Amino acid sequence: MNRQFLLNAHPVGDIKLTDLKYHESPMPVMGEGEILVKMEYLAVEPAMRGWMAGRSDYTEPLKVGDLMRGFGAGEVIESANSLYQVGCRVSGLLGMQEYAVTNGENFPIGIIDEAIDTASHLGVLGVTGLTAYCGLKAIGQPKVGETVLVSAAAGATGSVVGQLAKLQGCRVIGLAGSAKKCEWLTGELGFDAAINYKTDNVAESIQQHCPGGIDIYWDNVGGAILDLALEQLAVGARIVVCGGISRYNVSGEVPGPKNYFNIVFNNALMKGFVVSHYAHLFPEAIAELKKYLLSGELKHHEDIVEGFEQAPVALQRLFNGDNVGKQLVKV
Amino acid sequence: MNRQFLLNAHPVGDIKLTDLKYHESPMPVMGEGEILVKMEYLAVEPAMRGWMAGRSDYTEPLKVGDLMRGFGAGEVIESANSLYQVGCRVSGLLGMQEYAVTNGENFPIGIIDEAIDTASHLGVLGVTGLTAYCGLKAIGQPKVGETVLVSAAAGATGSVVGQLAKLQGCRVIGLAGSAKKCEWLTGELGFDAAINYKTDNVAESIQQHCPGGIDIYWDNVGGAILDLALEQLAVGARIVVCGGISRYNVSGEVPGPKNYFNIVFNNALMKGFVVSHYAHLFPEAIAELKKYLLSGELKHHEDIVEGFEQAPVALQRLFNGDNVGKQLVKV
Repeated sequence: MNRQFLLNAHPVGDIKLTDLKYHESPMPVMGEGEILVKMEYLAVEPAMRGWMAGRSDYTEPLKVGDLMRGFGAGEVIESANSLYQVGCRVSGLLGMQEYAVTNGENFPIGIIDEAIDTASHLGVLGVTGLTAYCGLKAIGQPKVGETVLVSAAAGATGSVVGQLAKLQGCRVIGLAGSAKKCEWLTGELGFDAAINYKTDNVAESIQQHCPGGIDIYWDNVGGAILDLALEQLAVGARIVVCGGISRYNVSGEVPGPKNYFNIVFNNALMKGFVVSHYAHLFPEAIAELKKYLLSGELKHHEDIVEGFEQAPVALQRLFNGDNVGKQLVKV
Repeated sequence: MNRQFLLNAHPVGDIKLTDLKYHESPMPVMGEGEILVKMEYLAVEPAMRGWMAGRSDYTEPLKVGDLMRGFGAGEVIESANSLYQVGCRVSGLLGMQEYAVTNGENFPIGIIDEAIDTASHLGVLGVTGLTAYCGLKAIGQPKVGETVLVSAAAGATGSVVGQLAKLQGCRVIGLAGSAKKCEWLTGELGFDAAINYKTDNVAESIQQHCPGGIDIYWDNVGGAILDLALEQLAVGARIVVCGGISRYNVSGEVPGPKNYFNIVFNNALMKGFVVSHYAHLFPEAIAELKKYLLSGELKHHEDIVEGFEQAPVALQRLFNGDNVGKQLVKV
């Protein structure tokens, strides 16, 4: 028997637990060249809100009744593909389910490096880390001494972005939604400053910590914070538009950034980022991320919910702001 | 006696004729290394609205009582600078006045090529042409067969952008506000199509003329048209944010582009453009623009108002949409 979550309804407003439906199906049957993977961890991502919405954007929208799309990592328990031995671990876009059959094509990462824990392969070495590395390298283009502002900085992507920018010699300021998250940023992760957007005056805090303006703004949130960042750009600033979590759960029209025209006054760039367009950078990204992980220069935290059936709860945590670092489900 | 226009009031809403004040001052006195220029043409630009507003953006804001900033072209009638002979013509940021004294530092173009008419040096060979060339080259990066949408396409900058994109092998669609302007675009200028944004259904027309989506959108207007363009981007699109004339005369907050997040779904770029950041491209730009002008491949039109005292009327014409091509004042 295979445990799965199917899309039960296109979410309206906040994601409800009932938007996903627990489902038991027969064990999947392996075909030629395929392998059978038993999942150990499932990842949840803010992007899932869009996948569930049934709108056509950069990926095929899910229909009600479809297996929920998602990344997972686990052990190969049967193999008809010589590239994958029984007993090795793999990660990939394997769906929100306990067992998956695949020919290997939906592995953006592939075989897990046993020197590094499995969970990391869904976070800092997974799509999250690739997003941080490729977006920062290709769009942010950090230079020594530049000031980098990161929103949702205690989230999976933001926490890697900030650390990578520090490793490039930048001053890094993070925005997060609790004192505990802010302490994690300036403590363990070594950010130069953190702003609690729920209790601090964000505009004043940005001014205080970015006196020469923002050179790189990594946007995971959109909304009011994007507008505040646009007010304090340095000349030549780069805005990596990676996410807009403030928009995802809003039904109907969401206002755009009223200060967008400041990109003209500041000769600045806003670039939308979807990691799949940067596959040419993946080998370099994985090599660099592994190097920093193994040297201990890159810290990470997985926020793990126990039990397959808790996957919808894990997903909700992302939108409540409850998670610190990468939100995973231990199957 | 020197005739000038001074800033009389920071405009509120639409520019009023009384926001500029006619002023007579003594003839300016030349110093060492300087020259005296008698203006033949003055240029007016949409950017003047921002200069007059007294807000600090990318240039020094003007104060009430200051000489109005502006480009002009005319004859050197006295010279204490061996680089500029009496009788040659020059163009530059010389102020909205009949006579100007300068040491040559405010000449982005410098000495006029007598093989090409003086007025062109304020339009297609002036800041307008440089804007079109540098923005298209550095941000738009047109490739053969791509689809380019240009707003305010019958304006000074847009008309050059569209023609340069055609010369690069692109399909070019222009947006303009009258049937006469649209005819000029598809007739004399060789655009592939024109959309009358006042009478056509803009969204449907874009869909019809850009079936594969917009690869390059040159934005001179902002507002609703920017949002409609954002809805129909091709993957990898580039948006050159050059102007936002729909915003300039609005007091208070102006909504941002509600569809900005489509740059994420389409891996697209929005870059703000101010020509002064692209000085390294000016020699190449001028050489190329001259070549196309002399070969007849680049058409242009100057919309000339007669009489120095008509400068405020000329400025208003930009915001009424009355002008076709570059709006000038013949002194």
